[in-house]
Amino acid sequence: MITLASDFGSPYPAAMKGVILRRSDARLVDVSHTLPRGAIRESAFWLRETWPTFPLATHLAVVDPGVGTDRDVLVGAAAGHTFVGPDNGLLLPAARRVAADTDGAIDWYHADPGDPTSTTFHGRDVFAPLAATVHETVKPAGPDALASLNRLTPTEPTVGLRLPEARVENDRAEGEVLAIDDFGNAITNVPGTVLDGRGTIRVNDDRVPVGETFAAVAPGDPLVTVGSHGYVECDVNDGRGEEWFGLTVGDTVCLDIG
Amino acid sequence: MITLASDFGSPYPAAMKGVILRRSDARLVDVSHTLPRGAIRESAFWLRETWPTFPLATHLAVVDPGVGTDRDVLVGAAAGHTFVGPDNGLLLPAARRVAADTDGAIDWYHADPGDPTSTTFHGRDVFAPLAATVHETVKPAGPDALASLNRLTPTEPTVGLRLPEARVENDRAEGEVLAIDDFGNAITNVPGTVLDGRGTIRVNDDRVPVGETFAAVAPGDPLVTVGSHGYVECDVNDGRGEEWFGLTVGDTVCLDIG
Amino acid sequence: MITLASDFGSPYPAAMKGVILRRSDARLVDVSHTLPRGAIRESAFWLRETWPTFPLATHLAVVDPGVGTDRDVLVGAAAGHTFVGPDNGLLLPAARRVAADTDGAIDWYHADPGDPTSTTFHGRDVFAPLAATVHETVKPAGPDALASLNRLTPTEPTVGLRLPEARVENDRAEGEVLAIDDFGNAITNVPGTVLDGRGTIRVNDDRVPVGETFAAVAPGDPLVTVGSHGYVECDVNDGRGEEWFGLTVGDTVCLDIG
Repeated sequence: MITLASDFGSPYPAAMKGVILRRSDARLVDVSHTLPRGAIRESAFWLRETWPTFPLATHLAVVDPGVGTDRDVLVGAAAGHTFVGPDNGLLLPAARRVAADTDGAIDWYHADPGDPTSTTFHGRDVFAPLAATVHETVKPAGPDALASLNRLTPTEPTVGLRLPEARVENDRAEGEVLAIDDFGNAITNVPGTVLDGRGTIRVNDDRVPVGETFAAVAPGDPLVTVGSHGYVECDVNDGRGEEWFGLTVGDTVCLDIG
Repeated sequence: MITLASDFGSPYPAAMKGVILRRSDARLVDVSHTLPRGAIRESAFWLRETWPTFPLATHLAVVDPGVGTDRDVLVGAAAGHTFVGPDNGLLLPAARRVAADTDGAIDWYHADPGDPTSTTFHGRDVFAPLAATVHETVKPAGPDALASLNRLTPTEPTVGLRLPEARVENDRAEGEVLAIDDFGNAITNVPGTVLDGRGTIRVNDDRVPVGETFAAVAPGDPLVTVGSHGYVECDVNDGRGEEWFGLTVGDTVCLDIG
Repeated sequence: MITLASDFGSPYPAAMKGVILRRSDARLVDVSHTLPRGAIRESAFWLRETWPTFPLATHLAVVDPGVGTDRDVLVGAAAGHTFVGPDNGLLLPAARRVAADTDGAIDWYHADPGDPTSTTFHGRDVFAPLAATVHETVKPAGPDALASLNRLTPTEPTVGLRLPEARVENDRAEGEVLAIDDFGNAITNVPGTVLDGRGTIRVNDDRVPVGETFAAVAPGDPLVTVGSHGYVECDVNDGRGEEWFGLTVGDTVCLDIG
């Protein structure tokens, strides 16, 4: 199984699929091709929340504003999964989350990009064929077989990325918005546990109710929930939390939970 | 085969797929993940028009504004197909349409939701694993095997839903807009047969031609057709009928066909 | 394998899939269902750029503003691939590109459309079942077996289509915009080779740098690149080239490369 994720929209992902299917009969599953364009950290969040739901797979992800530059091409292996993408931080939070299922160890490699036809579509010319090769190598022989590929050189990622952690002290939490989902929910990095036993809290300048479900408030009304990612989310029932709260990705969120 | 439908956009459907694929190697086919958000009746229309085109399958659908509340979890079986989703009416019109292929009988069950991780993403935590279980139960043994699942309790749906029917009398039909499609066609519930032999009709205040095809009128011009669902549709050739006619879902449509 | 492409958005493509899957267990791969609506030439460009990446497949494409009229139904075979769609030019550039892999020969057929239920959704009622039939015929016996299908009549396409070619003379190239991709890159038909060794060029009234990669200029700044299709593209790094350059599909582009 190969999962595919990108910020390509349509129809470029189909070219990646065609290239893969010339080399592999793997099942293909789309994670998303509308990842936030060029937004590595936000996309990394979505991969981290999605890849761990899958059975063993090769996970291909391309959000690559540096396409065609000398940024490296990264392959990883952890807990039986493999990862393929640009070495710009994109793969790291998800790979660490997947690796946490076992001992946390991740084997990283840089891959020779070969001689791509284009400088602007390495999804088609570099990453898709590489993902097919990784999948076909690992499928019969396991991830250790990657070490035998001449294209791959064991290394550490060149570019690091850690999603920021919120600070929680007594009755205050200070975090930031990691992502906005398609419903308009503003997903913070504040652990949902801070809401335990609270009826209302203040988010920046607004006091809003804590709800277990969106339907805890009337349609159009704001609330905070513990979202499906385990974090505090700023939501509106049947509406867009990002708009009501005036939040966008990267904004600071101060929660007064006293 | 498991079909998937939701109003989740992206990338949440991928988490459902990952969860299913950990439990089943079923073929997965997307019906849509841009069903009208939170719009149960309109989504129910689209499921009804789409599910019957499929061979035997488990159909998973999640448009669930009551997620996390005590709304029930529904499983159905008819004509060899099975259905999984929230008990909010969403599944009913489609299930009845599928059941019409045989004797109309539908076996309904409430499912124990288990102990979902989240209160806001039952697609991932309740419905996807349930769909995998239903599929894996039915695949070898047929739909009657559902009765042996301890999680399921035979029952009737708690929440009913019937799509409204138009009134047709002599030269007048009064119906409403069931859905707007991605082309902007306003799909009414008035049977297309009322257009038989008509050259023009009046839709609310506008007299427009009856066409067999969009191309029956010039680009940008309005017309009514018998749409692919068998109903009168208010269209614009190479344009958006909903805008020209000023119609939105639920609006009343009076047709003067005299 | 059957690839699917249309301008249908959602959920109409699912009805095509259901219809196919009742007749075939082929792997289904989406090329795109957001091809530019009703835009035959632009859609034909995208098919031409995408189909050749695939292994042997039946390629179904429906961008069909003449649905329900007496336009013909076209089936083609070349280089082991088969093509199904309306006879409006849509399939031709892609079929010729696929055929170029072998001797350039394409066998064309008109197909009896049968007696479709609807006049407005031949994707579901004509093209999807036809694609399934074509695939199931060709899979065991090869493309020559199409000649044995009573539904098919050998012929040439009724409607021709060739994508325009740019004129390149000395220091000037005059072409046009073939397509705008989801990134907002304006893809011209001017061969990328004209940029060889150039540092800047003039595009209509604007002098802009030539870059190998988007990142060759600062975010928000314009450039021209040799795009992944081999043509000159008018781009903005981390922005929308179509907006900066004021270009839309079909616009003339004059390049002064002196």
